[in-house]
Amino acid sequence: MSDGSDRVFHADGELVPADEATVSVEDRGFQYGDAAFETLRAYGGEVFGWDAHADRLDETCDLLAIDHGLPREDLHDRILATLDANGLDDAYVRLSISRGVQPGKLDPDPEVDPTVVVVVKPLPRGGLAGEPVWDGPATLRTVATQRIPDAAVPARAKTHNYLNGILARLELRGTDADEALMLDSAGHVAEGATSNVFAVDADGLLTPALSGPVLPGITRATVLDIAAEEDIPVREGTFGPETLRSAEEVFCTNSTWEVRPVESVDGATVGGGPVTELLAQRYRERVEDAYY
Amino acid sequence: MSDGSDRVFHADGELVPADEATVSVEDRGFQYGDAAFETLRAYGGEVFGWDAHADRLDETCDLLAIDHGLPREDLHDRILATLDANGLDDAYVRLSISRGVQPGKLDPDPEVDPTVVVVVKPLPRGGLAGEPVWDGPATLRTVATQRIPDAAVPARAKTHNYLNGILARLELRGTDADEALMLDSAGHVAEGATSNVFAVDADGLLTPALSGPVLPGITRATVLDIAAEEDIPVREGTFGPETLRSAEEVFCTNSTWEVRPVESVDGATVGGGPVTELLAQRYRERVEDAYY
Repeated sequence: MSDGSDRVFHADGELVPADEATVSVEDRGFQYGDAAFETLRAYGGEVFGWDAHADRLDETCDLLAIDHGLPREDLHDRILATLDANGLDDAYVRLSISRGVQPGKLDPDPEVDPTVVVVVKPLPRGGLAGEPVWDGPATLRTVATQRIPDAAVPARAKTHNYLNGILARLELRGTDADEALMLDSAGHVAEGATSNVFAVDADGLLTPALSGPVLPGITRATVLDIAAEEDIPVREGTFGPETLRSAEEVFCTNSTWEVRPVESVDGATVGGGPVTELLAQRYRERVEDAYY
Repeated sequence: MSDGSDRVFHADGELVPADEATVSVEDRGFQYGDAAFETLRAYGGEVFGWDAHADRLDETCDLLAIDHGLPREDLHDRILATLDANGLDDAYVRLSISRGVQPGKLDPDPEVDPTVVVVVKPLPRGGLAGEPVWDGPATLRTVATQRIPDAAVPARAKTHNYLNGILARLELRGTDADEALMLDSAGHVAEGATSNVFAVDADGLLTPALSGPVLPGITRATVLDIAAEEDIPVREGTFGPETLRSAEEVFCTNSTWEVRPVESVDGATVGGGPVTELLAQRYRERVEDAYY
C-alpha cells in the first residue's frame, strides 16, 4: 500500500503526479465553486455503492445544469484507474466534475467542457477485519451557522460550495467538539457539517427528514435499509437538538466514517449503544460480503 | 492594448501565461470554494477604490478566518504588475485569495499558506471619454432562488461560493432577462446576482439596507456618496419587487458596470431617467478626475 507521499491523481482525463494535478485559475470550479462532487470509499479495489453515488452526482449536475455528457462507466473507470495507479485497494476517493472554463461571465454556457478530477488517499481496510477511520466517538456541538435553506441552494446538490459547513466547523475552534450540529432556520436539526445524524430512543431510530435542508447521504440510506432489515422502526421527521441531547444513543454517518457513535451533544453525554453497534456491525458485514 | 489572447495572470506569486496559470486540485479554493475575492476595474493603469476593496477583502478573510498575512500593498503590487505585464491600462481585474492546500479535512488549519490569483481582461476606457461596458440597459426578472440568509453565510463575505447567484441566473434561461432579481426569505429585494439595485421615486433614491443579505458594493457606496453630494435623499430599507416595477427609474451597480439603467423589471417597463443619468455622469467624472 502506498503511504500517500507519491500519489497520482486523475485530472482532466490524465493520470498525473499529485503535485502536478491542477485546474485552470479560470475554471469555474475554482472561481465559483461551480462543481459537483462525491466522496466515496473504496474497499478491496472497488468503491462502495457506486450506483447510488452516480445517481446523486447526476442529480447534482442536473440541479446545476452541468450537462457533462460523460457516461457513468467512464467516471467509474477513472476512479478505478486512479486507485490502480496508486496501488490502493482501500482508500478515500473524491470525484469532482466542474463546469470547466467558460467565457468570462457568471451565466453558465449550456455548452460544457467539464473538468473531471479524482483525488485518492489511503485508508485502512474496512469490513469485519477493519478498523474505524476515526480516533473515537464524535463530539457534537450545536452551532449558530444555519444550514443554507433549500430555497437558496438545494441541500441535495453536493457541490464545491462548502463554506456553510466550513463556517460551522470554524465555530468549534477552542471547544472539545469535532463535528458541528447545524440547524435549519426553524431551529430543527439538519445535519452535521460532513455527516448525517441519527438518534436512538425507545421507539427506534430518528433522523431528520429529507424535506429539510439535509443531504441524502448514501450511508444514511444504507443505514435506513439495514434498520428495515433488522425490524428497527425508523421515523424521519423534524426535531430540535434537545432531542439528541436526551437520546439513548446518537450516531453520525458519512461514506468515510460509516457509522460513528457520538459521545456527547452540547456537553450532554450520550454515547453509542447496542443499536448503534448493531447497525455498524451490519454495515461492516455488507462491506465484507461485497468487497473482500 | 492587448486583445486578451496572450494574457498573463498572477498565480501563487508568479506572472505566468494565462494557459499555465493553475491551482492544485487540492487547493481549498477549488475543493470548497474556500476563498475570498474582489472584482475591480482598472482605469488608466490604476484600480478604482483600492482601499475600499482592500477593506472588504479584509472583512471577507476575517469572516472566513483566512489569516493570509499579506500586506495590502503586496496585493496591490500584484495587480499593478499583472496589468503592466498585459500592457493594460483599462481592465477587469479579479483578485482571489484562497486558503490554499491543507491536510485533508474540512476543518481549516489556522496556519494558512494562501493562494493568490490575479486575472485580468481588457475593458474599454472609462471616464468621460469612455463607453459603457454593457450593450444596453439591464432587464431584470425576479427569480425563485432566494438569497442565502446571513445566518447561513454572511452576504458581506465575497467568496468563491457563488452557486446561489449561478442558480439565480440559470432561471433566466429562455427569458429576455439578463440580471436576476433575488429576494430574501421574507420576499424583500436583496440584490441582483452580480449587482446592487436602486429605485428612484418621488422621494429620491431607495436601495435595500445592508441589514439584509446584501453585498456592501463598492459602487453602491460610491453612488450613495454622490447622492449625498447632490442632495438627493436616500432611504436604505426593505421593500418588495413591486416597488421596483412601479418606480420612476431603476438602475443596477457593480464595479464593472458602474451605473447601469434597468429597462424593465418582471416585464414592467421602467427605464433609467434623469437621476440615473446624473449619478452615472458624476461617477464618470470621478473616474476621469482621479485616473486619467
